[in-house]
Amino acid sequence: MKAVVFDGNLKLVNDYPLPQPASGEALIKVSLAGICNTDLEIIKGYASFTGVIGHEFVGTVEKVNGNAGNLKGKRVVGEINSGCGRCEYCRTGLKEHCENRKVLGIHGKDGAMAEYVTLPTDNLHVVPDAVADEDAVFTEPLAAAFEVLRQVHFRPSDKVLVMGDGKLGLLISFVLSSFPVDLTLVGKHERKLDRARARNVRALHLDQLISEKIYDVVIDATGSASGFESALEVIKPRGIIVLKSTVAKNSEMNLFPVVVNEITVMGSRCGPFVPVLRALNEGLIDAKPLLTKVFRVDDALEAFATSSGEDSLKILIDFR
Amino acid sequence: MKAVVFDGNLKLVNDYPLPQPASGEALIKVSLAGICNTDLEIIKGYASFTGVIGHEFVGTVEKVNGNAGNLKGKRVVGEINSGCGRCEYCRTGLKEHCENRKVLGIHGKDGAMAEYVTLPTDNLHVVPDAVADEDAVFTEPLAAAFEVLRQVHFRPSDKVLVMGDGKLGLLISFVLSSFPVDLTLVGKHERKLDRARARNVRALHLDQLISEKIYDVVIDATGSASGFESALEVIKPRGIIVLKSTVAKNSEMNLFPVVVNEITVMGSRCGPFVPVLRALNEGLIDAKPLLTKVFRVDDALEAFATSSGEDSLKILIDFR
Repeated sequence: MKAVVFDGNLKLVNDYPLPQPASGEALIKVSLAGICNTDLEIIKGYASFTGVIGHEFVGTVEKVNGNAGNLKGKRVVGEINSGCGRCEYCRTGLKEHCENRKVLGIHGKDGAMAEYVTLPTDNLHVVPDAVADEDAVFTEPLAAAFEVLRQVHFRPSDKVLVMGDGKLGLLISFVLSSFPVDLTLVGKHERKLDRARARNVRALHLDQLISEKIYDVVIDATGSASGFESALEVIKPRGIIVLKSTVAKNSEMNLFPVVVNEITVMGSRCGPFVPVLRALNEGLIDAKPLLTKVFRVDDALEAFATSSGEDSLKILIDFR
Repeated sequence: MKAVVFDGNLKLVNDYPLPQPASGEALIKVSLAGICNTDLEIIKGYASFTGVIGHEFVGTVEKVNGNAGNLKGKRVVGEINSGCGRCEYCRTGLKEHCENRKVLGIHGKDGAMAEYVTLPTDNLHVVPDAVADEDAVFTEPLAAAFEVLRQVHFRPSDKVLVMGDGKLGLLISFVLSSFPVDLTLVGKHERKLDRARARNVRALHLDQLISEKIYDVVIDATGSASGFESALEVIKPRGIIVLKSTVAKNSEMNLFPVVVNEITVMGSRCGPFVPVLRALNEGLIDAKPLLTKVFRVDDALEAFATSSGEDSLKILIDFR
């Protein structure tokens, strides 16, 4: 099958072996896959991953190895963490924190940027008919945005700042734009900020941000180590900073203001699929303004090159 | 009056001018004052404070400049933050986060290690008759321990680790020892750990701590920058790290595990006096095992020297 593979170099392989679903897994024919910033980090060496890349997808179940035969023929999206099934986390519904987890296209498991992918049937969610493939493929990144809603109680009087106008920052601002909070997005790229403005989100260039401690909640989706420091400059005492940026390197920092101002810092990662699919089905959320371009699988390398461009947002690869 | 003053050097001054209560303030005759680690930091230059040192005290109101005349003659303890009275924080009961606050013996206001001290009457709390001076003087540090209870919901199934066998770490472990959680204190000083063991707290030397991610809540009261890093090594995914250590310097750190493991980090500072006085009155909490020695005011410099000693816990200065 065709697959986008990273083995130190990124390449399109035309004869990658078809994966076989293990017990409890399904074989899924991929329709669309999305390129995430994590993928762009992986091809720079992050997580030391090799294999089929990609973890955002929508597809159709072709075969089930196990009891969930009712999934056959269904259009699905899939949670990316698969746990050991035996540890405390797995037993309490937190497989995304299992210490021995495999993560689709990121750690220990071939990913979704291929004609076929396997995943445990427990990870799959059927996509409602009314949700197009081009929307469903945003389920995974939208779930990462929804995770912030699981963690933080947003109050109507809250002043909320989303930092970072990349895909995740924009998605979080889209999601929060339907909340009655005082919302601001801040970033460095006017064209990206314009996508938020088109959704009636107040969007400021970083240069316009006043360094005053006025925000109740600051969400750092900058993807950079300096995001946390900037958040500390604008967060109110007793405020909440949500950290979405996975920056795998040390940096100089000072937690003194966290203690003195009693700031809460919350790490935030993957989120729940079910409410995202419900919100997409109800038309509560529309991620399509993020779509920059759809490439055919044969042009996957060009898709990655485009994805790295400064004004680029979501790039999809079409296997249909 | 006699006062313990820091002006670059620590000294006992015999003729320090008697403070005058401003409008809304009371003049309090100090009975006992405690030496806190913050005082030991201040005499090393922390917070650039000069003036009368000290912020833990119990005393008797001698004069009131304002409406709270009913406080006259009452035995009181006092909250250490006095706000501007006009900002959003002051108006919403959070004067301890007022940006223009003065902090008794720490920032902008002469402290309590003197025969007399002034404080806004709003900051004062009457000590119940059944609570001895030697217990009441622990109200402020106990409130800092109670602040953790305000912030964190401790569940019976939680494994809780308190890091640091200094005064604050011990007080927190004493407070938590009455909760049905699985509690461990870890430190470096066997004699201090023994004080906790005498209260049936499981207390381990740091060398015995296993580096496994098994704790739901870790409270860092080490007072050192490395405390946070150690906490990260033992906190469970989705766990809570409470930071009590005010370390006013940069250090190399990596927030990657905070994000990936969705850790919540909470800064924690001053706490509520009312529940502490109630708990002392009801005999729910007893801080006296922390008392190392009481010095006469004339021996204040010796008191500070003793307080810096490795096995020393709470040192009091007696003005009675």
